[in-house]
Amino acid sequence: MVKNTQVIFNKIPTNYVPVAGEHMVIHESEFDLDAPLSDGQFMTKQLALSIDSYMRGRMRDPSIPSYVSAFEIGKPLLCGTMSSVVKSSNPLFKEGDLVYSSGGRFEQYSLVDGNEAKDYKIRNESKETGLPPSYSLGILGMPGFTAYVGMMKFGHPKKDETLYVSAAASSVGQLAGQLGKRFGMYVVGSAGSDKKMTYLKEIGFDDAFNYKTDDISTNLDKQCPKGIDVYFDNVGGKTLEAAIAHCNHFSRIVACGMISQYSENPETPHNLMELIKRRVQLTGYIVSDHADMEDEFRKNITQWLLAGEINYKESVADGIEKAPEALIDVLQGKNLGKQIVKVADL
Amino acid sequence: MVKNTQVIFNKIPTNYVPVAGEHMVIHESEFDLDAPLSDGQFMTKQLALSIDSYMRGRMRDPSIPSYVSAFEIGKPLLCGTMSSVVKSSNPLFKEGDLVYSSGGRFEQYSLVDGNEAKDYKIRNESKETGLPPSYSLGILGMPGFTAYVGMMKFGHPKKDETLYVSAAASSVGQLAGQLGKRFGMYVVGSAGSDKKMTYLKEIGFDDAFNYKTDDISTNLDKQCPKGIDVYFDNVGGKTLEAAIAHCNHFSRIVACGMISQYSENPETPHNLMELIKRRVQLTGYIVSDHADMEDEFRKNITQWLLAGEINYKESVADGIEKAPEALIDVLQGKNLGKQIVKVADL
Repeated sequence: MVKNTQVIFNKIPTNYVPVAGEHMVIHESEFDLDAPLSDGQFMTKQLALSIDSYMRGRMRDPSIPSYVSAFEIGKPLLCGTMSSVVKSSNPLFKEGDLVYSSGGRFEQYSLVDGNEAKDYKIRNESKETGLPPSYSLGILGMPGFTAYVGMMKFGHPKKDETLYVSAAASSVGQLAGQLGKRFGMYVVGSAGSDKKMTYLKEIGFDDAFNYKTDDISTNLDKQCPKGIDVYFDNVGGKTLEAAIAHCNHFSRIVACGMISQYSENPETPHNLMELIKRRVQLTGYIVSDHADMEDEFRKNITQWLLAGEINYKESVADGIEKAPEALIDVLQGKNLGKQIVKVADL
Repeated sequence: MVKNTQVIFNKIPTNYVPVAGEHMVIHESEFDLDAPLSDGQFMTKQLALSIDSYMRGRMRDPSIPSYVSAFEIGKPLLCGTMSSVVKSSNPLFKEGDLVYSSGGRFEQYSLVDGNEAKDYKIRNESKETGLPPSYSLGILGMPGFTAYVGMMKFGHPKKDETLYVSAAASSVGQLAGQLGKRFGMYVVGSAGSDKKMTYLKEIGFDDAFNYKTDDISTNLDKQCPKGIDVYFDNVGGKTLEAAIAHCNHFSRIVACGMISQYSENPETPHNLMELIKRRVQLTGYIVSDHADMEDEFRKNITQWLLAGEINYKESVADGIEKAPEALIDVLQGKNLGKQIVKVADL
């Protein structure tokens, strides 16, 4: 028997930011590494957990439908995990394989049933590239792929156009902006702290502002003097309203998340008429619909990372028991770069 | 000298519906048909005026920017006009030509200067087709072209999908729905009276409801049991919200007008997050950007009208002095079919 620390969903929060120890609790259980496995089963040891703001959307009454299922009270939180296979009776997964799951359990060890195995994907690339396995939770995983699909498929980026990215220091935002730069765009980002602003400029953003201390619209006036041609929206609400008010004719709004809309009384844009006047195309998308672009995405981003042409920063919380605080940090915008929780070394 | 009745913009209205005699007044002036013309000038005799709800948007403080300029106090209202050229010193326009202007003056006779001539287009087709010249104000004009561009370029209609059209009995809406039927779609329309509902079913809509007496969302539940794949939006606001709540994955919203947004405290959708969850593409457009499609549009619609494959209804107010009431009727939704004012016979 080994100790198996779990992060359990304990109660549905009403405020946007949940409370550690109340809505999420640490539970100490045990795991039998010597237990026999049925056909198709395998055991994983978690290496890193992905902490994403959209987890908040899963902390809801399960009767409210959404594109991802609600977390179950009394069960571990679920999100992206990178793990190593420690034992296997499944011919598709060998001991030592690195595996990614988009809905892995927040616990040190997991027993994966045959019918859950479809949610696991082998991600052994880091053994060859030398890039950290945790990158598969961020720039080489779902957030990076979200930025890639949004920019490449729906953003129609053009040289000398202006790109505005909200939540720009997020793992999605920082890549979206850097992709804009590759196309020769003028790239402006907004983020929630001066430290994040500095970081954005370090990784190549032309300009940045702190939306918490500065008025969004005033800053867009100043920093996007030629207007916005592509708005990469992670926020929605009043940020979307300000962006619409700066959109050029025939601009594109790429919407992959609206974190402003998880609060209890979310604000909503009141200038949608401008979408017509300014001939704007707004596309909402979910990255999992675009699996056909995944190989191209991983090949390109790996190459650009290895060549030093793309920057990427992780914010690492050390130890699985830090997961609740790490999620709270993300929801409060305290993390700089992609937030992960390191559970164990390879 | 002949009598020249004009419809003058007299005062900016604060309510959505302006008042005849207060915001729009009839003015009797004179016109000298024998006056000599400078090079490039020509004289028109108006045959028919187009009455469109978007005219309300032009009755505003000119300091508020928009995609069309504001009306000038003390000058005639402007909108689509069909006229006959009665005298010309412009080599491009001959006596007897039928001409369309998108911003013709609401008066019986106009003197058109050389620099205004670019706003006039020769529309002699009706001499050959036998279709009424006034059709160039509706189904063969800007409203019809708006429906055509929206459905053909941005709607991506597919057989057996569901199309919902709001303001469906408008000149735009009735063609949008009929184009949906040509693609084998299931077409549902909403309009503001039972008479309009009956009309929509007569011209081939599969179902229709009266949004003034019935709840929009309840009716979309009932009448669009498979959800909405294309929403042709003329209304915005709460109607857009209800439509979004019924959108299928990968549906398209084609937005060419938001008449709900002209009122003083317009409502706005609070469920934009659904655009992401449901992977919706919302495209705002202005028909004048798509001149490259105009020949194809006119050829196809003329052919379908002559073959009896497309229905079209006009609501005719007889006499230029009826123009203010006709606009009020349109803004109150009292017209059935495209509202025109007949000024004179050919």
